[in-house]
This record gives sequence, structure tokens and C-alpha cells, in this order.
Amino acid sequence: TTMPGSLPVNAESCWPKDVGIVALEIYFPSQYVDQTELEKYDGVNAGKYTIGLGQSKMGFCSDREDINSLCLTVVQKLMERNSLSYDCIGRLEVGTETIIDKSKSVKTVLMQLFEESGNTDVEGIDTMNACYGGTAALFNAINWIESSSWDGRYALVVAGDIAVYATGNARPTGGAGAVAMLVGPNAPLIFERGLRGTHMQHAYDFYKPDMVSEYPVVDGKLSIQCYLSALDRCYAVYRNKIHAQWQKEGTDRHFTLNDFGFMIFHSPYCKLVQKSVARLFLNDFLGDQNLETANSVFSGLEAFRDVKLEDTYFDRDVEKAFMKASAELFNQKTKASLLVSNQNGNMYTPSVYGCLASLLAQ
Amino acid sequence: TTMPGSLPVNAESCWPKDVGIVALEIYFPSQYVDQTELEKYDGVNAGKYTIGLGQSKMGFCSDREDINSLCLTVVQKLMERNSLSYDCIGRLEVGTETIIDKSKSVKTVLMQLFEESGNTDVEGIDTMNACYGGTAALFNAINWIESSSWDGRYALVVAGDIAVYATGNARPTGGAGAVAMLVGPNAPLIFERGLRGTHMQHAYDFYKPDMVSEYPVVDGKLSIQCYLSALDRCYAVYRNKIHAQWQKEGTDRHFTLNDFGFMIFHSPYCKLVQKSVARLFLNDFLGDQNLETANSVFSGLEAFRDVKLEDTYFDRDVEKAFMKASAELFNQKTKASLLVSNQNGNMYTPSVYGCLASLLAQ
Repeated sequence: TTMPGSLPVNAESCWPKDVGIVALEIYFPSQYVDQTELEKYDGVNAGKYTIGLGQSKMGFCSDREDINSLCLTVVQKLMERNSLSYDCIGRLEVGTETIIDKSKSVKTVLMQLFEESGNTDVEGIDTMNACYGGTAALFNAINWIESSSWDGRYALVVAGDIAVYATGNARPTGGAGAVAMLVGPNAPLIFERGLRGTHMQHAYDFYKPDMVSEYPVVDGKLSIQCYLSALDRCYAVYRNKIHAQWQKEGTDRHFTLNDFGFMIFHSPYCKLVQKSVARLFLNDFLGDQNLETANSVFSGLEAFRDVKLEDTYFDRDVEKAFMKASAELFNQKTKASLLVSNQNGNMYTPSVYGCLASLLAQ
Repeated sequence: TTMPGSLPVNAESCWPKDVGIVALEIYFPSQYVDQTELEKYDGVNAGKYTIGLGQSKMGFCSDREDINSLCLTVVQKLMERNSLSYDCIGRLEVGTETIIDKSKSVKTVLMQLFEESGNTDVEGIDTMNACYGGTAALFNAINWIESSSWDGRYALVVAGDIAVYATGNARPTGGAGAVAMLVGPNAPLIFERGLRGTHMQHAYDFYKPDMVSEYPVVDGKLSIQCYLSALDRCYAVYRNKIHAQWQKEGTDRHFTLNDFGFMIFHSPYCKLVQKSVARLFLNDFLGDQNLETANSVFSGLEAFRDVKLEDTYFDRDVEKAFMKASAELFNQKTKASLLVSNQNGNMYTPSVYGCLASLLAQ
């Protein structure tokens, strides 16, 4: 067999209850570029950034801030606002792709905040892969709390980045900020168990090979394709996993977007998130077994019954039809999550958690 | 209370049994610098590197290798030698501080090996903090297998680095290599539960702020102090934890080095490891409650009864006396682990796992 094992039958009764996010803090710069001003400055059509990308403002750091100061600020704020002692943190991990040292982690810099408490028994370091680092750190924190290594204390997850682009199409999609999350049991925001869908692939859509430049090298078109195809795959994996879980529980039906309370995304720019909701709706449509769509949510989409996901990343007819058909879904389940993204821009690793904060705040 | 929770009472019966290292592969360059030749080239006294540092050879990469190729090689070797399918890996994490891209992880490069299998549902990315990345990745892998996220598949942990130094004292302490470890339940090499001792602190002893240089900035003396003081703290934390565990089980005695079967270390150079054994022995001595040492292992060390750990990092009398007193301990429990370190040098993140491989092979 290729599977070395399986979860113990009685496992669910043993892990701490309701592991999730206990508290969340967000910090982003007080300076911003108004995107209508940037449109004028760049000499592009009015609305290209504000409507085309869906971005109103872009936060930026002054030369008095760097990745270390962003993360120090957000951690200190979280600890103070929740009246937490630094003793009660047993794990601290940082997700970032703003690398200003090739060896010393931001985590070690944050240990300065712990000095007075004398607490140095704190696992976790920095974790890096483009915008995914914050999520990797969060998953690691949850795993820690469910493992034999857990010592009863909280895990602290920090995601922070400064996103700046060279002159050109990508420049208006910058931003900056940091999010800190306190992770523990008995949380108000609980993570599902056994249902993560992951897609990992080798691609050169976005990378930072120039070590002295803050700017990434970006293949914009490939990047969108990577985003949408990864979304397709993750949703498929997620649906397979929850379908299997439901079957075990005696329910035999397929998962659709109706089963989600809300949908939040990593947001490079707001319009891509709206397109992603349409994309998931396309996935539901293509997976729908019922060919009689006249009175269903898929009414009017019959012409697209035979399209293939991998042919439609840049198909404007498909995009337009499914954006329209999913508009209400977007308004109900996703729009509120885009407040910080719209007002501050892409923060890279904290982006999706800025969306979470936006949703929770409204 | 500052403690948000505690482990469920019945937890031990629920985690998969015997989680640990199922298979291990090591790869290091076939080229090396003979340290006696380097002594001549550098115009230093014969024996400065070979005896003073305890290093015989230093592996180095040609310009046909980089961190990606080292890690690709070691993973492919592990998979082939153990006849494993890439389908059976559910997590892959890389520890490294050899950063050639500030955003794209080595992990994504390794995903090329998975392409034929179609397996893209593989969590984990890169993790970075000096030489600690491999250990962080290993701890994360173990946590994953004990968590609700585990899907029954193996975790793969990769640690790899190319260690090169500018001309000067640190240059002979370079090296290069990579280790891959397959982590799963029912392992022949099992990790203890709840007994990790961690010490994390903000320090500028070793860092890489020059983004275009392969070389770290090193404060050699501070670095040794950091190493030894962290060793003191980790051993103290470990002893406290195992003492508490023993008390729970009804045994009330203190842990000493006699309780270790073997002791392996991160090895910047072999002599520092030998000094570390002496250092741990000093810890045992200072913690020993029995003042009558005449017939004990501490015989002849009475003069050092009142020294303080924090005053002795560079105390040559203490070092000499405890090196001598712990020589047999070193020979029995540590020496065999230094084969790769002596013959290839410091690999940074894989160093301690090269020591493990050396020990297992003899």
C-alpha cells in the first residue's frame, strides 16, 4: 500500500475542541496612493484601476517602516488589546516574502517583545512561498495545537509583506500590511477538520530572482491562469473530501457554493476575486448532474454545457456570462470581505486574512 | 489563566503510533578541499583547522549545482531507493537558508518530481531561520501527522544548504549538502512526545543582510556564546519537562546525561560539538545535588562548584577540565555522529541530520 496509515478511529474525541482563531489584529500603513490619481499619473484611461481592477487606494510604507516594524507593530497591538502576557505564547511563526535578510528570520526579531517575560521556549520560524506563507504558518499552528507537542499555550501566527511593483501594469496592484492571529482551542472562529484542498505546482508566474530589487518578476497572464487553475483544483479536492465525509455520515449529495456561508479569497486585486466567484460558479455548473437548468440557478447558461475548465481561463464570453450569473452570490457571500483589499491593496501573505477581518468587521 | 488549555487526558491513545523517521537519504558534493591543504594555502599553523576545529575535509559545489539541484537529487534518491510513489506524499517542507529567490520556494521546484504522478495536494513550503530550518520542518511534519489534517500519507522533510564564508577565520567551516527524511507512523526512529526544549532569541551573531553575497556576516565569538547559552537553556527546558513527566509516572529523580543513549548536535565544526558535550556535563555538575563528588563522575572538579554558567562561555580552565572529564562520554555517545561533519563540513540546516546518518551508519 502507498498509504502508511490512517487516522485513529477515536481521534476526533482527543484533539482539543474548536481549534481556530481566538483574536485577530491588522495593521497597514496610514499613507496611500489614490488610484484615480495614479490613473492620471500613469496616463491610462479613467477607471482602469478603480473599475478594471476594483481598487480604490494603495497603501505604502514610508522609509521609517520595513517588514520587521510592520510585524512588531501588529504583534504588540494584538497582545496589548487582548491583555495577553508573552508567557502564554508557545509558538510563533511568520509568513512573509519580504526578505531583507537571507538567514535571520523576522520571528527572531519579534522575540525582542518576549524578552521582559523571559519566555524563550517558543517554537516556529519564518515560512516562505509567495503569498502562501501566512496560510502555511496558520496551518502549522493548528497542527501544533492538535499534536503531542502542544504545551497548552497559544500559537501566534503573523503574516506581513510590502508589495511594490516596477512601473507598468502590475504597479497599481501593490499594497502593504500585516496581520497577527492568536490560535488556540475554544475559538470563536473554528477550522474544519480534514477538509483542506491544496494545489502545489512548479511555475514561474511570480518570483523574485533579483536579490537587490523589491520588485517581483511577474508574468501577469500566466499568474492569472495559475490562480484560476489552482482555484479549480483546490475546489475539486475540497468537494471530494467533503463528499467523502458526508457519505461516511450517511448523506449522499454533492457540495455546491450554496453550502458556503461566505467565501473569502487571496485578493491580488478585487476584480480577480469577483472573477473567482464566477469561476467557482462555473465549476458548480459543469459538475451539475441535472441537465434541466431552465428553472435552476444555471438558467440561461445552457450554451456553455460543453466547455472545459482548462480552455476558459481567458474566455471572455464564459467570464461575462458567469460573472453575471454569480453576481448575487458575490454580493451576498464575498463582497464585504474586500473592504481592506479595496482600500489598501494587496498585502501578499496577509491578504486573505485582511479579507477575513473585513468580513468579520461588517 | 494564561494557559488556554491542556492536552486531552486520553490523547496519547489517539495519535498514530510511533511517529518518526521512516527513511533518510543524504547527498553531499563529490568535490572537497583538504583542510591540511587549506591550512597551507591560508598560511596558518598546521593543525589549526584539522585539530583546532576538528575538520578533515570541506565539501563544495561546482557551478553545476545549486540549492535546487541538491534538494532535487536527495529527494529523487530517497524516493527511488525506497521504491516510493510520489502519490504517497501528503506533505513536503524544505528547510534552507540558501536563498536564491525571495519568493519562489525550493518546495515548488521539487514539485516537478511529482508531475508524472499527478499528485499536487501536498502541503508545506520552505521554512527559514539560519541552521534551524530543517528542524522546524521536521517538527512541523510530525505535528501534521498527529493532527486532524493528516490524510494517512507520508511527510517528506528536506534540509539543504551551501555554506561558504568570506576569506578569514570562518572559511574552513564551510560545507554543502542536503538530507531528505520520510516521516510517518510505525517508524524505526521514533520521536519522544512533549519533551522538546526550545530557545529562541534575537541576536546578530550570524545573518545574511547582503542580498547579493553568498557569505553570511558572522560574529564568531558571539556565535559561540549564542550556541552554548542556547544549549544550556534547551537542556534545562528538556530536563524540566522530562522531570515533570517522570514525576507524573511516579519517579522522582533528576535527568542526567547518563539517561541519553546518544547525543547528536548541530555541528558548525567538530570541536564545538565536543565542547558542547563538555558543556552539558558542566550543566549536570552544577545541577548535581550531591556535594560528595570524590567517588562520582565529577571527581576532581570540586574547584568549579561555584562557577556560573553565564560566566564560563570562554573560560579556558572550565573548558579544559570539563572536556577532559567528559572525554569518555563524548567517545561513547557522540563521536561516531561526527563522520560526515568531519569529512564534508557544515551543511547548515542538514548538519544535525548528517550527524544522525553518521551515527546510524556505524
